[in-house]
Amino acid sequence: MDQHAPGLAPFAPALVTLARDLFEALRVAHHDGVGITRETYGPGETAAMRRVEAIAVEAGLERAWDAAGNLRITLPGRDPALPAASCGSHLDSVPQGGNYDGAAGVIAGLMALLAAPRPQPRTLHLFVLRGEESAWYGRPYLGSSALFGQFDPGWLDLPNIRDPGLTLRDAMAREGADVAAIASRTPLVVADTLSHFVELHIEQGPVMVARKVPVGLVSGIRGNHRHPSARAIGEAAHSGAVPRWLRRDAVLGAADFAMRLDATWRTLLERGEDLVMTFGIFTTDPREHAMTRVPGEVRFTLEWRSESERTLDAFGALVAAEAAEIARERRVRIELGPGVRTPPAMMDARLLAFGRRLCQSARLPHEVVASGAGHDAAIFANAGVPAAMVFVRNEHGSHNPREAMDFADFLHGAAVLRDVLLHGAEAL
Amino acid sequence: MDQHAPGLAPFAPALVTLARDLFEALRVAHHDGVGITRETYGPGETAAMRRVEAIAVEAGLERAWDAAGNLRITLPGRDPALPAASCGSHLDSVPQGGNYDGAAGVIAGLMALLAAPRPQPRTLHLFVLRGEESAWYGRPYLGSSALFGQFDPGWLDLPNIRDPGLTLRDAMAREGADVAAIASRTPLVVADTLSHFVELHIEQGPVMVARKVPVGLVSGIRGNHRHPSARAIGEAAHSGAVPRWLRRDAVLGAADFAMRLDATWRTLLERGEDLVMTFGIFTTDPREHAMTRVPGEVRFTLEWRSESERTLDAFGALVAAEAAEIARERRVRIELGPGVRTPPAMMDARLLAFGRRLCQSARLPHEVVASGAGHDAAIFANAGVPAAMVFVRNEHGSHNPREAMDFADFLHGAAVLRDVLLHGAEAL
Repeated sequence: MDQHAPGLAPFAPALVTLARDLFEALRVAHHDGVGITRETYGPGETAAMRRVEAIAVEAGLERAWDAAGNLRITLPGRDPALPAASCGSHLDSVPQGGNYDGAAGVIAGLMALLAAPRPQPRTLHLFVLRGEESAWYGRPYLGSSALFGQFDPGWLDLPNIRDPGLTLRDAMAREGADVAAIASRTPLVVADTLSHFVELHIEQGPVMVARKVPVGLVSGIRGNHRHPSARAIGEAAHSGAVPRWLRRDAVLGAADFAMRLDATWRTLLERGEDLVMTFGIFTTDPREHAMTRVPGEVRFTLEWRSESERTLDAFGALVAAEAAEIARERRVRIELGPGVRTPPAMMDARLLAFGRRLCQSARLPHEVVASGAGHDAAIFANAGVPAAMVFVRNEHGSHNPREAMDFADFLHGAAVLRDVLLHGAEAL
Repeated sequence: MDQHAPGLAPFAPALVTLARDLFEALRVAHHDGVGITRETYGPGETAAMRRVEAIAVEAGLERAWDAAGNLRITLPGRDPALPAASCGSHLDSVPQGGNYDGAAGVIAGLMALLAAPRPQPRTLHLFVLRGEESAWYGRPYLGSSALFGQFDPGWLDLPNIRDPGLTLRDAMAREGADVAAIASRTPLVVADTLSHFVELHIEQGPVMVARKVPVGLVSGIRGNHRHPSARAIGEAAHSGAVPRWLRRDAVLGAADFAMRLDATWRTLLERGEDLVMTFGIFTTDPREHAMTRVPGEVRFTLEWRSESERTLDAFGALVAAEAAEIARERRVRIELGPGVRTPPAMMDARLLAFGRRLCQSARLPHEVVASGAGHDAAIFANAGVPAAMVFVRNEHGSHNPREAMDFADFLHGAAVLRDVLLHGAEAL
């Protein structure tokens, strides 16, 4: 087939070997005994980026580190006036995560740039992004937000969740970021200079495995609303000596709250709304732990996600109403604390249609899916860059050591990414 | 009034001063900066016992230390053939507890022996007991259990909860107990040699404060059923990417379980049953904490208490049934783990009636109350010794530094204890 026409042609054997070896090298370098740990703005993240950089330099690609510590790898095009086609993903992980979340997108992007016939008409960029996971500082998309001048300087003071003595400011500076430049909100890239952005990622849910499709094309990315430091506040008491009518039991208050929201969630799903809801952390105070004490406080996190801004708002109103009910009925005060909001992002419909045509012509089984998880692609889309996402089937979900992506599925997805990168601009 | 007839006569001023000074001396000696800490089979507990012993010896009373390290103070009676009247309580505390839980009963008993006209017809004993609090080794009533040969030798291997390198065996030996004798389950006292046992204790709940009565007469002591290491086991997953129908959310499973038991509890109360239920610890796994992870596991403790053996069993059956429902409806497995059971104990109805007559004749406001917390008196009652308990009003509950017992209330309670000790046998 013509190397310039999209058709999901297989990658050359040397590139397949390179990808396989790179996955393995990352696994060996960052296995912590349980899973893969590459901390946001940590030495492991930087080491993984340097490994990708070394391969790119060896292959004659250009590279640059930006003020946020992101790495951009570039194959310059013949016509500098043409907006650049771009792809990318991140290299940090949650603690004890898996080897594919983030890394698969970076490796697929690297393969695309290495596979691209030279010279290309337009410049190609691979963004190797920092800090996509919120598990370390409570905020996701740090690197991509900085790219578009959307990094809130207040985030610099966020403490590392596992090491509260370390602020994001200090971690960024340690890994070579220019903190002052980031705080000034100067964009590091101009959206107009990018024709489009495409990101490959493992699917983080069980839907594609259940439906037996190796490749997914993403219609949109759910936004979310999060309360990272919510509390249910009752009153501690002796477990044997305080009757039910005099109790203000924080566990029962918080459990009641969770059950009311669960019922509301079910109702909204039955009406056809898109919604997921999670209490990720839910805990009595370890300093007061006793089997014989009515707990006075429960700390919890609450997150809800939807493709629809309207549904996010509607659920938020119901959350507040149920919290007020708990205070009235159980004398347990629900304090949601500060809320953090990430808007939903729609993928570009033309790029989506282009991807579907690619898969159809190559007879590759695929499906259009919503992304429940957030991705850097959402930041690009909301900054005005037409964006697309390719999902690869993945067993056991992500954010855990049991992530299981079949390498053959990955190669299919990487071919879709490559062709959307090289030819997607023609659809726009 | 006749010194031999019960009538809640006031104590002599010197005895009131002695009691006040002893409370203050214990507070000063065992304040840890936050509250009172006297560890079970710890040096603080022993020091407090030695302080009581010194006062007794000074006053010409006899004393003996038994194989479990309990201290028995005795005023020998004229007729050694008569069963001895006995009282007592404990001198250990929870970590950062208050100054009155346990100590009030020991000081009231000491006052009773010191106030008793000499010679008495029957021998009087004050048992100063070890290890009533479960906060240190997970098992309560260690000293009183040993008294009646009910100390399970398996308990010797229990680790100290805050210092797991220290076993109960080593702590007991360090404080002078004869561990081998205890392990042989030889009773240290024969129940038949005691006419009755009476214990004064601060109320550990808010009922007497709410009802404005200084003194309570206890009808019975709630038994309990405890599961100290229960778990709800679901499956961890990405919070954004797994739809509701594919989730096995451990927090929602555990919250649903708690709400079902809460509804059952309310129903049983409406039927007039005596019951309290507590999830004292309820926590997602700190090692896996992330806002964006559907939690795979919740650890919790579950305890329920009742005066009625039948209600304890009935609730246990409902607990198991609801656990099975959660597994079916939410695919979250509730594992209750090993259960620990303490039987309820009824106080002697004749002694209770005697105490009420005492209060009525002295016009002392009082009320008959159930004890929600466990007490050494339950061990005496279940060993066949007719038992009574006198509660003293106490603000803010117990097991915390804010315990607040009015000294005037204490003196009323101590007078009731004294007269039940000296004259209760006449009611039997």
